[in-house]
Amino acid sequence: MNEPRLVMGIDPGLTRCGIGVIAVSPGARVRLVHVAVIGTPVSAPIGDRLVDLERQLMALMQAYPPQHVAVERVFSQHNTASVIDTAQAAGVATLVAARQGIPVSLRTPTEAKAAVTGSGRANKAQVTAMVMRILAVTETIRPADAADALALAITEAWRGDAQRRLVSASRGGR
Amino acid sequence: MNEPRLVMGIDPGLTRCGIGVIAVSPGARVRLVHVAVIGTPVSAPIGDRLVDLERQLMALMQAYPPQHVAVERVFSQHNTASVIDTAQAAGVATLVAARQGIPVSLRTPTEAKAAVTGSGRANKAQVTAMVMRILAVTETIRPADAADALALAITEAWRGDAQRRLVSASRGGR
Repeated sequence: MNEPRLVMGIDPGLTRCGIGVIAVSPGARVRLVHVAVIGTPVSAPIGDRLVDLERQLMALMQAYPPQHVAVERVFSQHNTASVIDTAQAAGVATLVAARQGIPVSLRTPTEAKAAVTGSGRANKAQVTAMVMRILAVTETIRPADAADALALAITEAWRGDAQRRLVSASRGGR
Repeated sequence: MNEPRLVMGIDPGLTRCGIGVIAVSPGARVRLVHVAVIGTPVSAPIGDRLVDLERQLMALMQAYPPQHVAVERVFSQHNTASVIDTAQAAGVATLVAARQGIPVSLRTPTEAKAAVTGSGRANKAQVTAMVMRILAVTETIRPADAADALALAITEAWRGDAQRRLVSASRGGR
């Protein structure tokens, strides 16, 4: 029962997709397990890119089997040329996890920034610095997609647990 | 060599996804093979919806193995609440086809309207009427998602062939 559980955060993208895996043990600090930025060739047809991303995500979920996955929520107000690509990458990440029965939470960037820094308006450097401090790593985590993925995983570990405890308490469980 | 080939059009959506399959034979009219609107429960978690959609699309591609799939292109300018859902549904459709090695074309609604009616600004009733006439079906095709999916398939059959012939001619092939 005291085995650490793995939580994976995913900052979705077809060109750059941040992946962060942390270990969560009751009563202990969260710990860095793996961090990576994967991607697919910009020049490849969209179908090939989605298949490639799916394959890489499946390999990572096999290597570091998460008990929970947190994917950054994509908003249509992000009216950039890449929002469709980002939404599709987030969809593939959600699909791959759900197909294996792994619960998926969608978390907003504001929520992740607030969870790790205390402010939903923190900048990228502040998020990276706090992620490093929380995970007690000294080597700078780069690029921002990698730090963002870890921030999502940390948010899930902290908020998800708190939310589950509240649900449990309100149902009279412990 | 004169076996008809199947072309599948997909009007993507998580709640309503139109699927149209037509048979294309050299020198003959395109023919209706199958038309359906599939969907997933609005109340289900996004992961379950994507898995459900993937399963239904795989079953349809197995039942009516297409040699080409045309998916409606999603634009971020469609700034509606559902654009992310639509983009993710389109992504799953593209992924499922590409994973099986089936070529996928993304076609705009304007392109499909222009191909079947002659005008990129045709309304839904005009598109449905022309799709019925082209396929020589007398029973009204409903809902609009079903007619749109067939319009995409017809567009692919006509334009795709013409485009491939042009490429072939410019390469000195026949």
